Amino acid sequence: MWEEQPAVVQAEPLRAFCEEVFARLGVERTDAAVTADVLLAADLRGVDSHGVARLKRYVDGLRDGVMKARPATRIVAETLTTITYDADGGLGQPVSALAMGKAIEKARVAGTGFASVRNSNHYGIAGYYAMMALEQDMIGISTTNSDVLVVPTYSRNALLGTNPIAVAVPAGANAAFVLDMATSTVPRGKLEVYNRLGKPLPQGWATDEEGVGTDDAGHVLQNLVSRAGGGLLPLGGEGELLSGHKGYGLALLVDILSGVLSGAAYANLVYPKAEDGRPLPANLGHFFGAFRIDAFRPLDEFKRDMDDLLQRLRGAEKAAGAERIYVHGEKEAEKAAQRREAGIPLHPKVVATLAEIGNELGVDPPF
Amino acid sequence: MWEEQPAVVQAEPLRAFCEEVFARLGVERTDAAVTADVLLAADLRGVDSHGVARLKRYVDGLRDGVMKARPATRIVAETLTTITYDADGGLGQPVSALAMGKAIEKARVAGTGFASVRNSNHYGIAGYYAMMALEQDMIGISTTNSDVLVVPTYSRNALLGTNPIAVAVPAGANAAFVLDMATSTVPRGKLEVYNRLGKPLPQGWATDEEGVGTDDAGHVLQNLVSRAGGGLLPLGGEGELLSGHKGYGLALLVDILSGVLSGAAYANLVYPKAEDGRPLPANLGHFFGAFRIDAFRPLDEFKRDMDDLLQRLRGAEKAAGAERIYVHGEKEAEKAAQRREAGIPLHPKVVATLAEIGNELGVDPPF
Repeated sequence: MWEEQPAVVQAEPLRAFCEEVFARLGVERTDAAVTADVLLAADLRGVDSHGVARLKRYVDGLRDGVMKARPATRIVAETLTTITYDADGGLGQPVSALAMGKAIEKARVAGTGFASVRNSNHYGIAGYYAMMALEQDMIGISTTNSDVLVVPTYSRNALLGTNPIAVAVPAGANAAFVLDMATSTVPRGKLEVYNRLGKPLPQGWATDEEGVGTDDAGHVLQNLVSRAGGGLLPLGGEGELLSGHKGYGLALLVDILSGVLSGAAYANLVYPKAEDGRPLPANLGHFFGAFRIDAFRPLDEFKRDMDDLLQRLRGAEKAAGAERIYVHGEKEAEKAAQRREAGIPLHPKVVATLAEIGNELGVDPPF
Repeated sequence: MWEEQPAVVQAEPLRAFCEEVFARLGVERTDAAVTADVLLAADLRGVDSHGVARLKRYVDGLRDGVMKARPATRIVAETLTTITYDADGGLGQPVSALAMGKAIEKARVAGTGFASVRNSNHYGIAGYYAMMALEQDMIGISTTNSDVLVVPTYSRNALLGTNPIAVAVPAGANAAFVLDMATSTVPRGKLEVYNRLGKPLPQGWATDEEGVGTDDAGHVLQNLVSRAGGGLLPLGGEGELLSGHKGYGLALLVDILSGVLSGAAYANLVYPKAEDGRPLPANLGHFFGAFRIDAFRPLDEFKRDMDDLLQRLRGAEKAAGAERIYVHGEKEAEKAAQRREAGIPLHPKVVATLAEIGNELGVDPPF
């Protein structure tokens, strides 16, 4: 297979380009900056599927009105430790950064703080908001519901999203623990890769229109588009033999915390369409939390034990054939350091799409 | 294979028997009652491995001093929304019920509340404490670290426990959502069943002393006893193909929240032994949380949407060959209703052990 050479672009000009694109589409400057920052964080950390490769979706969303450039975000409930926002159909990133910031502010005063968001859109990588807590020596949590792709255990059809859970925990000398995981076995993007390569899927990744395990990536992807049935399997795979019901439970929990608790859409309501096929606002929901560590025990003791725990794992004896034991967030932190230095590789197709967007909006692309 | 007939015993006399056993071993009457109640909740809900079958372990623990009958439980940190207890090596159940009760009390005032426990012991089923929140129309969370059995991704040895996560969420007409899951693919007890039946283990359950997947249950169990290496695999199985690193991440997260945040032991420190092989106090840690739903949105709206969500899942079209789509906690609630009526079936070995305990302590067993 012929692989095209990626373009390599420095993070800051790429971020500035995205910010300018959002601004030209009517997004407030500060909101544009946050949204661009979340996209770039994904590219820097190696989560290319959630980075600038997704810019066009936001551009389309803003253009067709599914995402409002200037939403009237408002508070619908608030207590000492909780706050619920209605995002009014705006971009997911600015309201999420606002909400997580508020959770942190509440935690500073009360020990812990939580924020819930309804009427929102795709918020980028879940880990971004959880990691906002790290600078404050807090534990951060972030979850969101998302487009329906995942088949509950024993269901024929997809009813849940890949509903990610992110938790960030500060350490001392070690990189922070950052768990940022979809609750499906794999994301849709992995099926696309297998489809391109013509490789059979491993058992435990996906089901066909009967709700039965299949190794045919193209068939599953087609079925997802036409809503013919089947989809991605939850973490733990098909049935209960490898405990797929646990992954299903986690996906459902995320839908409850993000969708039901906030008053957003949930389950198969997500990503609705009008009768003429036009997309309607998604009404996604998010959930954020912050825990002040020194509310539980002295911070220096906590960091000392975190370092010890992470070191024990990283330094443990390896399984036969294994090269390295990772702690969650370690790979991504290394990737970010490397890409901040050497730049971000962009697939030629992504470059072409960004150039087209820039051209249409009169923004010079950084390549 | 010849199966012995189980004895069937009513819940209340069985509970009273356990309470009396604890009281005879010097446990305060109220603590004895709570501990017995947690054991019976497991038997009622069908989690037989965590019910009265485990009574002997607590009896032994109290006798050999690994668990203190009358600990001097104390508060080591407290804020408006958080509290940290040192359980002084007492039974896990009473301090856990106390801590969860305090989290609920704090949530009543502040919207959310959390409690952390160090220097504790095995606390029974995680779900018990999460479910305490249901009566208050709150969401409850409970996690604990536990005996080292689980192999991190790419590690040769077990370094983490099966570290369960429990979350309970009230609904309206439907049974509450109660997720109560070990973060390993399966618990050790499943390997014992396969070993007794001489069945090969499915791939994704366990590894051998080299840290490589194996289907030999007896071998894995032996290795666990002798600490020769290998053990149970995290949810998602071996390596990263089915995302075993996600299960590993969840197990590690539980160890951080339960062990590190509370100041308890963590990772391979758990269940230490003296040089002469005598068990030392385990210093387990737990984490509890409560969220007042009406801090986020009106309770009646939340319950209406929960019912709708759970109904959609339960009523969804089934996969080919599947009979029923479950929601988490549904099976257990049905089992509890049935066993409350018909009694709890006890294996003859369990009956014999309980009779022996009763005999030694002068407590009449309920059979």
